[in-house]
Amino acid sequence: MNIGIAGLGLMGGSMLKAIKKSTSHRCFGYNRTHAVLKKAEKYLDGVLCQKTLKDMDLVIVCLNPQLTVDYILNNLDGFKKDAIIIDVCGVKRFVVEKLDERLYEKSLKFVPCHPMAGKEVGGYKNSSSALFKGASFIITPTQFTDIKAVELMEELARTIGFSKVVKASPEEHDSIIAYTSQLAHVVSNAYAKSPNISKHQGFSAGSFQDLTRVARLDSRMWAELLKLNKDNILAELELIIHHLEKYKKAMIENDFERLQALLEKGNIMKINSLNNSF
Amino acid sequence: MNIGIAGLGLMGGSMLKAIKKSTSHRCFGYNRTHAVLKKAEKYLDGVLCQKTLKDMDLVIVCLNPQLTVDYILNNLDGFKKDAIIIDVCGVKRFVVEKLDERLYEKSLKFVPCHPMAGKEVGGYKNSSSALFKGASFIITPTQFTDIKAVELMEELARTIGFSKVVKASPEEHDSIIAYTSQLAHVVSNAYAKSPNISKHQGFSAGSFQDLTRVARLDSRMWAELLKLNKDNILAELELIIHHLEKYKKAMIENDFERLQALLEKGNIMKINSLNNSF
Repeated sequence: MNIGIAGLGLMGGSMLKAIKKSTSHRCFGYNRTHAVLKKAEKYLDGVLCQKTLKDMDLVIVCLNPQLTVDYILNNLDGFKKDAIIIDVCGVKRFVVEKLDERLYEKSLKFVPCHPMAGKEVGGYKNSSSALFKGASFIITPTQFTDIKAVELMEELARTIGFSKVVKASPEEHDSIIAYTSQLAHVVSNAYAKSPNISKHQGFSAGSFQDLTRVARLDSRMWAELLKLNKDNILAELELIIHHLEKYKKAMIENDFERLQALLEKGNIMKINSLNNSF
Repeated sequence: MNIGIAGLGLMGGSMLKAIKKSTSHRCFGYNRTHAVLKKAEKYLDGVLCQKTLKDMDLVIVCLNPQLTVDYILNNLDGFKKDAIIIDVCGVKRFVVEKLDERLYEKSLKFVPCHPMAGKEVGGYKNSSSALFKGASFIITPTQFTDIKAVELMEELARTIGFSKVVKASPEEHDSIIAYTSQLAHVVSNAYAKSPNISKHQGFSAGSFQDLTRVARLDSRMWAELLKLNKDNILAELELIIHHLEKYKKAMIENDFERLQALLEKGNIMKINSLNNSF
């Protein structure tokens, strides 16, 4: 296949490297910053531009949500007929709403995807062909989604390192991801805001490192994700504040039996989650 | 030296295994549950009991805070003269207040310690001679603390794998640890309480794993630690709730520029903390 990759940041760069490492597909790249495109040159078979776009069998758009939508809509008449187009956004209702029917009407095969892989540091310089190793690749098909295109993307995902492919509706995806990913970034970011963080060295171990790892984030991208999944994230945010208030109240009231019961409940829920499968 | 280890859980068991692996000291163990003592037999030179206690040059008490205080006070007349006694509790004001002067008056050398190492799973069966590898060993000396005993403990800590030894006052320790360790367990435990946790498989990656790892905890021990460091933990808990409310408010008001600024502040604080040293 000819594969176009629009956006060569952490995700697009890793896609490029992983595809070139594991397949014989030809890859064409686009990036707004020319210096990045230059760095990626050794992996590329060509540049993705208006001229080459019409030869792409698959276009992987690795941009922030609004830019993803803009890129695809701006090039709506530039894609090859029957081309598969996928996005990698962390919100799926938004992209599906903006793109799904439009692309279907143009005989383009849109597959909404979310590779569950990332790092607390971004950009092409941190991209790696190993980013997807062991990770989960989520696809959120709709009534417009071409089944053969989905199967092809499943196969590609496994080939480049993903250990499993799961499917969900865009609504299910956005609800679960609000909890597993977006809330994690908000809570970790809030955790980093104590003055005591400047004194942690020598006084911290795994738990501090774990709680604050993703405090480091691309604030522009995450603000956009939070905006586009606002209802779900607000519900999760209210829930964790509610639970934190419960521990606080038990402590203020010196009710340490209740505090222990509250901790035990979280302990059990975590243990149960290790065994559950969706 | 003859070393007595009271309590052969995760910490005591790891101390035993690490000391036997890296030194030629003789180790004597005590554990309330006999089955554990039986399992540890192959590492032990003998049982720590009233009869052998008086021959111990060093006693490492690896019990929960109140039990640590009880064990030491109950055996106040059973220790060898000039013996070094250390605890490993995650709260230091409490043990110092209960033990420091009492032991000094008895010519016993009490060194308040906190090995910054742990796991989300406890008990002797999870203990390991490698638990302390790369970790920090905290000592909180007071005006009663014997300097030579501190030096000896520093040396032992490095010998069994700790990569650094830091010193702080008991007050400083309790303030920083409330943030770096105890708050982490509370927040992680609260994080695990969303109904969405049962659906995480296939929809989660590193951020979810990191945020919920220490949700799994010994609720009895952690309730005790929270009780004994209540003032510091309440302050940290109020602070993170305050910050979470700020993101929530910005989202409700659809002020995503402010949301981005809030996220950027956490990002910067995390990045700065990577470079700071205490």
